[in-house]
Amino acid sequence: MPSTPHASAEEVTPFTADDYRARMTRAAESAADAGLAGVLVAPGPDLVYLTGYQPTAITERLTVLVLAAGQEPVLVVPTLEAPDAERATGAAALTLRDWTDGKDPYTVTAPLLDVGGRFGVSDNAWAMHLLGLQQALPGTSYVSLTEALPMLRGVKDAHELARIAAAGAAADQAYGEILKVRFAGRKETDVAADLAALLMRFGHSQVDFTVVGSGPNGANPHHEAGDRTIERGDMVVLDFGGLKHGYGSDTTRTVHVGEPTDEEQRVHDLVREAQQAGFEAVRPGVACQEIDRAARKVITDAGYGEYFIHRTGHGIGVTTHEPPYMIEGEELPVVPGMCFSIEPGVYLPGRFGVRIEDIVTATEDGAGRRFNNTPHEMAIVE
Amino acid sequence: MPSTPHASAEEVTPFTADDYRARMTRAAESAADAGLAGVLVAPGPDLVYLTGYQPTAITERLTVLVLAAGQEPVLVVPTLEAPDAERATGAAALTLRDWTDGKDPYTVTAPLLDVGGRFGVSDNAWAMHLLGLQQALPGTSYVSLTEALPMLRGVKDAHELARIAAAGAAADQAYGEILKVRFAGRKETDVAADLAALLMRFGHSQVDFTVVGSGPNGANPHHEAGDRTIERGDMVVLDFGGLKHGYGSDTTRTVHVGEPTDEEQRVHDLVREAQQAGFEAVRPGVACQEIDRAARKVITDAGYGEYFIHRTGHGIGVTTHEPPYMIEGEELPVVPGMCFSIEPGVYLPGRFGVRIEDIVTATEDGAGRRFNNTPHEMAIVE
Repeated sequence: MPSTPHASAEEVTPFTADDYRARMTRAAESAADAGLAGVLVAPGPDLVYLTGYQPTAITERLTVLVLAAGQEPVLVVPTLEAPDAERATGAAALTLRDWTDGKDPYTVTAPLLDVGGRFGVSDNAWAMHLLGLQQALPGTSYVSLTEALPMLRGVKDAHELARIAAAGAAADQAYGEILKVRFAGRKETDVAADLAALLMRFGHSQVDFTVVGSGPNGANPHHEAGDRTIERGDMVVLDFGGLKHGYGSDTTRTVHVGEPTDEEQRVHDLVREAQQAGFEAVRPGVACQEIDRAARKVITDAGYGEYFIHRTGHGIGVTTHEPPYMIEGEELPVVPGMCFSIEPGVYLPGRFGVRIEDIVTATEDGAGRRFNNTPHEMAIVE
Repeated sequence: MPSTPHASAEEVTPFTADDYRARMTRAAESAADAGLAGVLVAPGPDLVYLTGYQPTAITERLTVLVLAAGQEPVLVVPTLEAPDAERATGAAALTLRDWTDGKDPYTVTAPLLDVGGRFGVSDNAWAMHLLGLQQALPGTSYVSLTEALPMLRGVKDAHELARIAAAGAAADQAYGEILKVRFAGRKETDVAADLAALLMRFGHSQVDFTVVGSGPNGANPHHEAGDRTIERGDMVVLDFGGLKHGYGSDTTRTVHVGEPTDEEQRVHDLVREAQQAGFEAVRPGVACQEIDRAARKVITDAGYGEYFIHRTGHGIGVTTHEPPYMIEGEELPVVPGMCFSIEPGVYLPGRFGVRIEDIVTATEDGAGRRFNNTPHEMAIVE
């Protein structure tokens, strides 16, 4: 059940059919520049970004947007979803082609494709659909959009930046409020429910995750929230986010129930320093991996390198996790308007974890800008 | 945000590691029988069915279960999700192999695969991952599981049937209660919220859809629920379902606010007759398409064939929509233990729609059994 959208006091400018047309044109041209015959877009974040259309459910029935330079965009949809697709804002900037249950959707799609061409395809397109196209057009070849056009959704315009800023501010408000609730004696899932309610109260339409990792659970970076009762003396990792006005928030702070030990304080200070180092590395032209290296160096130099077991960050936009990734090996340059997380952590198995995360963007003037601005100091909660 | 699980009074027997081992063995053997080298299982319903493991989120990080006859099952997971995977019930019946951010997950997976083999792959595996494997092992080939092993999850055992029966009974309870709420003057979304709350109250852990299609909205079979205010004189299609004890419910009834017109009553009677005809066609050995034909014939003979714009049904199990499909061209035979919907409909554009849906199963003794047992007669609501 999707969460109920919550009206927000802030105004945002709705995207228009022209906005979507411009995005689709740019995607087709970028594909041509990259030597591709076109782009095949599956339901999910790529389709939302390019057309504003989000099917009620992503199912086995083929929905695919076909983009190619100099060609009118065509959205192939199941007949019974055509009325929904027609209502999407971007529908005015494309042609709909529907197919009915019992027909082969690949033979409907095939004539839209260059039979010997190479196509970028949404990462999350279903394997079943890719196999159907490979079979219908054996001369075509495919490459994932993250590999072919990693920056397709990577650079945000002013309207998108405003949405990401609003989402970040709402997450910050939620953090401010969660510090006032009781932690000791309550289950992680109770605090997670509070966080979810706060995100909705501050204008999110959807909550994607509410990690509450207390004590040893904090040492598992992908732990969400469980039945564990939070105790006095626990470190608690709080990592939460979702969508507001269609754009993502994602922030982490690590708090402590009562006074921390010296070691807990030291590890927290270390992660804070690493996060700051990552942030200070943000400049247009710097390779994404340099941000990972800057944050990781601080932790490695302090002897905790083996306990920082994930990449430093990920892009954010119409989803809460997307390319580009701040990871060793990612040589894509940082570009003004790119938005991503910086979230180093240290995880001591069976004991506790610390992570600090802000969403940031690179600006034209060279400095990074944070969209999360709550204090990094370890908050003490009750 | 996942819905909060709701404790249910009914007892179900938890699946054990042995249950999952048996399912994995059967899948690998079925694959071998079908001439496949093995099966690659992606996060989602196939992985839940075979291992009980459901990652917190399905992301770009590769998670894949590799099954091959005579070989220990191996689950490839990202390192930071390994602790979660280890806790899955089925983990005791397989070997975990983890890969760390920055490494190439396909080179971790490739040694597990027969380099010249043909593999079944989960329909919903990400295209990105399939492309990664195709590139790492150019000699391999792939086919979707729905095409290769359509019955992988199709036949339910007694424990699964008990869960689907419980889910159906809960949906029926929700329908009984929704007839008591006020429709006229309220928005579709309000009634949808009531339905969602009722499903949860009757033990669902997750609500997948709550269609409330009033008046002309009922003529769009994939309309969910919108801002339209329901009026006296409206037909209202109610189609709702979700998961209880991990298994699906899905039922539709079409009600009327106040007294129907003669035409509304006639169309409703027609759909009811079609649904009954589909149900009576259920017998072991009958091709799935015969159930579609039986229901469709009633509607076509009455001159409404062009207004029945979707297939007659779909399988149900650990998801609310899955193979096999009751559709023209599907020659798979009905087998005892197969569970699926029978849901013919008539949709008069701009006016109203009618759909009636039950989940049914085929039994050894030849007769179909309904898991939804609320009256098919058009209920009159206020």
